[in-house]
Amino acid sequence: MSFTTELKALLSNRYSENTDVRNQHGAGFSYHACMPPDAVVYPQSVEEVSEILRICSRYRVPVIPFGAGTSIEGHIVATRGGISVDLGKMNRIPEINTADMYVTVQAGVTRNQLDEALKGTGFFFPIGPGVNATIGGMAATRASGTNAVRYGTMKDNVLSLTVVLPDGSVVKTGSKARKSSAGYDLTRLFIGSEGTLGIITDLTLKLSGYPESVYAAVTSFPTVEAAVNTAIRTIQQGVPVARVELLDATMMRVINRYSGLTYREEPTLFLEFHGSSGEVERQADRTRSIAFGFGAEGFVGEEEESARERLWKARTDAALAVQTLVPGCRLFSTDVCVPISRLAVCITETQRDIAESGLLAPILGHVGDGNFHLSIPVHPDDPDALAKARAVNERLVRRALEMEGTCTGEHGIGIGKLAYMESEHGPALAVMRSIKAGLDPLQIMNPGKLLPPSPF
Amino acid sequence: MSFTTELKALLSNRYSENTDVRNQHGAGFSYHACMPPDAVVYPQSVEEVSEILRICSRYRVPVIPFGAGTSIEGHIVATRGGISVDLGKMNRIPEINTADMYVTVQAGVTRNQLDEALKGTGFFFPIGPGVNATIGGMAATRASGTNAVRYGTMKDNVLSLTVVLPDGSVVKTGSKARKSSAGYDLTRLFIGSEGTLGIITDLTLKLSGYPESVYAAVTSFPTVEAAVNTAIRTIQQGVPVARVELLDATMMRVINRYSGLTYREEPTLFLEFHGSSGEVERQADRTRSIAFGFGAEGFVGEEEESARERLWKARTDAALAVQTLVPGCRLFSTDVCVPISRLAVCITETQRDIAESGLLAPILGHVGDGNFHLSIPVHPDDPDALAKARAVNERLVRRALEMEGTCTGEHGIGIGKLAYMESEHGPALAVMRSIKAGLDPLQIMNPGKLLPPSPF
Repeated sequence: MSFTTELKALLSNRYSENTDVRNQHGAGFSYHACMPPDAVVYPQSVEEVSEILRICSRYRVPVIPFGAGTSIEGHIVATRGGISVDLGKMNRIPEINTADMYVTVQAGVTRNQLDEALKGTGFFFPIGPGVNATIGGMAATRASGTNAVRYGTMKDNVLSLTVVLPDGSVVKTGSKARKSSAGYDLTRLFIGSEGTLGIITDLTLKLSGYPESVYAAVTSFPTVEAAVNTAIRTIQQGVPVARVELLDATMMRVINRYSGLTYREEPTLFLEFHGSSGEVERQADRTRSIAFGFGAEGFVGEEEESARERLWKARTDAALAVQTLVPGCRLFSTDVCVPISRLAVCITETQRDIAESGLLAPILGHVGDGNFHLSIPVHPDDPDALAKARAVNERLVRRALEMEGTCTGEHGIGIGKLAYMESEHGPALAVMRSIKAGLDPLQIMNPGKLLPPSPF
Repeated sequence: MSFTTELKALLSNRYSENTDVRNQHGAGFSYHACMPPDAVVYPQSVEEVSEILRICSRYRVPVIPFGAGTSIEGHIVATRGGISVDLGKMNRIPEINTADMYVTVQAGVTRNQLDEALKGTGFFFPIGPGVNATIGGMAATRASGTNAVRYGTMKDNVLSLTVVLPDGSVVKTGSKARKSSAGYDLTRLFIGSEGTLGIITDLTLKLSGYPESVYAAVTSFPTVEAAVNTAIRTIQQGVPVARVELLDATMMRVINRYSGLTYREEPTLFLEFHGSSGEVERQADRTRSIAFGFGAEGFVGEEEESARERLWKARTDAALAVQTLVPGCRLFSTDVCVPISRLAVCITETQRDIAESGLLAPILGHVGDGNFHLSIPVHPDDPDALAKARAVNERLVRRALEMEGTCTGEHGIGIGKLAYMESEHGPALAVMRSIKAGLDPLQIMNPGKLLPPSPF
């Protein structure tokens, strides 16, 4: 029997070598070139995932776990061919437990699907990247998004995982208890492991109570520094702000054009407050007076849902707006995260760098965490723009590392940030390699991602 | 050169084979029998820790990291002799950074010392176990305590660690950024690893803003179930309660006797609310009406600091109070954590079990997390009581595991919970063993702890 025969026997028409299917599974939402896998499989159960991994282990075939294909750093490109394991058919939500405030989902459940399922329960899942990713993919890349300043990232909101290891064995990384001191934290080990240690098939997620009241606000500043200082002071004063997003002047200009809006084209904060009804207004009041202290102009606030959504729509449409700048472009997206006290300098130096490069590269930041993004529209036929974008990215990452930050706050390493792992982690990289060698001795799991090739 | 000669040459009078010193380093705060190490060393720097580990690796001598010796599950007993590495002399606090809301500490800094250092900064470190442990020890056991329901555990409040590996290499597990998606989460891997993978020497901790206002309250209930349901409903309704501690009727009786107090000897909740001034009262009001709905009697609240401290003193003195029950006793302390919806049943069945055993075993719970403790005073010369305590503990853990909980919420495994690792983790234990084998191939780090002997 050949490898292909075994997989076909197991999955029948849920095994595909179709070129379009393969290409669709070989590229994420980014500038990274498509590298299609040799085939795509669609398991429907943990048992099938286990069997697929057993077969791939036996034949030493690379395995690339695939969620919604929204990865930004090339996590799903098939650098060495192999099998893309698409978890899209594993999209059930077996249990919503409001008493214990958790939900269990299969890895292929999408963010929007989960939102829909939780409607009316009084609870929500606070982690939301800008795209409709799968929950499994969000765990694999340690995703976060706009709510992280208050609710944390995926690492803070997963109780336990079911993971299939490369040899086909199935492990559960935790219980349904809210906390535990029983052994190594395998849940956190697999979160952010980018499919290089095993395939996440099921997740138990912590739910958060939907706030009694939500208040949104937008306010603009004379400088990036004033906006960042407002965010810092707000957090330091203990205002439990739920979202605090910075859009730079370029981004505001792009959004105004895209959505026909008339916001000031200055560094702007989009804010959101969660709490009881009176409380959110008090939080907003305190933030407003901090903002005015830093020279803010205007502070438009909304508590009513549709008005809030109108207000936030500009922020939500940011990525779409950037994509219209260069017809036919792909987005070169990158992110770093620095200590918040260095954020204003990091952004300002990056803006200078962008201006010198001649690129159009709007900036958007989850400033409460010190995390920000560049989105650079690059046409595939413009190698010069791509080279410039790479150079800006390189300098951005070096700057962040010099500031004791990290080369990525939420996008992950994939293949895009491999070159910086050594600078960021130094000797700790050997620890990561040791873990990888122990769990994936045949090196079949998502090869070429997260860990740069060993120098030895 | 012998092993001893090398260590003495390195550390001179900071190497000790004194019997009292060895005995003091061979027992924690618990019923576990003292097993003294062969010698105790007191490094003063990361370089010395590294050199000690290099020497111990060369001679394959067991190494037991030691903080304040407050461990409950026998984490520091020298099951195979070896060297206890006392980090007490590494107790500096190099940096308090209020702009970026972190503090860097050496591993030997104690909880109380850190509190003292943060006074007047407007920030605090929210994790506090019931004893004056070292911060390094708290990280090594993934400690939590009364604030965890709101602020999380050690895993949620550490930004990065410096760890010395068994071969003497020094790794940093993270940056100063608030979040990162750059590679495996080594910080969370070492948190809770109980000294079995390396020695934590330095920590960067997240700080929390000290609340503008704090409100404490005590209220008692006809049943454990009513008390637990009040905690559940309070959390579900989104009241961000900072502490919610359950003391059972036995514990209240013990405390009244110890402190000459006159609390109702019924299941009682001690609560604390953090926020702005009006906010904490509103939080308390909402909780009060929930409590009354479940039949609570009385709801004594205090906002002024000394009155709050008086109120909480009874809770704080609980362990001391239990120790006076049996003169000359040691405390058999154990904890489990279950999904909160199972908590009342778990506690009630355990109380029945205790009554049948004839033991005196007050219960105290961090009920917001579903975590609770038994403290059983056992005299060292009473093997019958110890056997009964072990049996109650065994049934307690089995009960928790059947309820999809964990064998320990915050005390850790040490040697005391080794027997339950297989039941709790099953195949995931192989993953833990693989990590251990990769990082500590000579098996010198805290042998006999956390991982049960392999069946193979």
